[in-house]
Amino acid sequence: MRVLGVDPGLTRLGIAVVDGGVGRAVRAVAVDVIRTPAEDDLSVRLLKVSDAVEGWFDQHRPEVVAIERVFSQHNVRTAMGTAQAAGVVALAAARRGLPVMFHTPSEVKAAVTGSGRADKAQVTIMVTRLLGLSAAPKPADAADALALAICHLWRAPMRDRMAEAEARAAELAKKHRARLAAAARESRTVIK
Amino acid sequence: MRVLGVDPGLTRLGIAVVDGGVGRAVRAVAVDVIRTPAEDDLSVRLLKVSDAVEGWFDQHRPEVVAIERVFSQHNVRTAMGTAQAAGVVALAAARRGLPVMFHTPSEVKAAVTGSGRADKAQVTIMVTRLLGLSAAPKPADAADALALAICHLWRAPMRDRMAEAEARAAELAKKHRARLAAAARESRTVIK
Repeated sequence: MRVLGVDPGLTRLGIAVVDGGVGRAVRAVAVDVIRTPAEDDLSVRLLKVSDAVEGWFDQHRPEVVAIERVFSQHNVRTAMGTAQAAGVVALAAARRGLPVMFHTPSEVKAAVTGSGRADKAQVTIMVTRLLGLSAAPKPADAADALALAICHLWRAPMRDRMAEAEARAAELAKKHRARLAAAARESRTVIK
Repeated sequence: MRVLGVDPGLTRLGIAVVDGGVGRAVRAVAVDVIRTPAEDDLSVRLLKVSDAVEGWFDQHRPEVVAIERVFSQHNVRTAMGTAQAAGVVALAAARRGLPVMFHTPSEVKAAVTGSGRADKAQVTIMVTRLLGLSAAPKPADAADALALAICHLWRAPMRDRMAEAEARAAELAKKHRARLAAAARESRTVIK
């Protein structure tokens, strides 16, 4: 499965494509940072982000898009811009019929370092190691985009397995109820 | 000038087209609310908003788009969705080369009622009155979109006049500095 991961932002948007292989193997296909000038109008910045992301879709043909879920940040204005950049990426994906998943920063950190409270340096170290890169990806937004794609590749099967397990449990419960009902009918027959 | 005003939101997005006439005259062309189902994925909801807004652009050919500026709301999740809906509208406008302006809720309220702290009922009353509508526009999001468009029509000339005044002041200051420099050169000549 090929995942396009995005660490959203207006000033810097981390973007990466990662392929999942057998087991936990992951391979980096591309990684970069999309920048838009702060002096541009918001609508123009969003257009630049959108056009750049479309270019990545054309070039790398991902099967799924994973975006970091934005929470309120210290700066409300920055948080809004980040949310809007994320929205523009989600929109571009939806236009192509690509599924979009959001992962929280702590889910991403936990996926690649084992701790949801890991710092940026630790995330970068693990991303470099897991992907077998010769140098650490820079800036942090690029490393975050890679981490996000890895997080998606590793969480998706787990989610699928959980969904399967839930479906199996529901099926068993249904059979169990049917058996109980049959037993109740039988016992009533006997009592009659 | 024809303005498309948007009160952004994912669950309900107010949208209106208003024409500005001579002086303060304003005329409502169209008003509606775009809704997207809460059970849809975020990316699909954004796509629905985007497609609906594109339809309005095609049908009404606005010259400018005015969007309510989103601030943090009580609910961070709602604020993010609202910001993303606003971003998607701004993006659609930028794709067509339309200028996008943001106005704060208090600017909008002040424009149509005279007070930045007016309540929704007061805004609706004034919008109905200013546009000469036979009935109050409903829901509040629709009235807000109309108020936003009116706010833009009334603020834009004021901003242009201020920009002109500033340019004039800068020009005068430049001339003044040139005169001072010339005077300084003359006085030096005299002193020599």
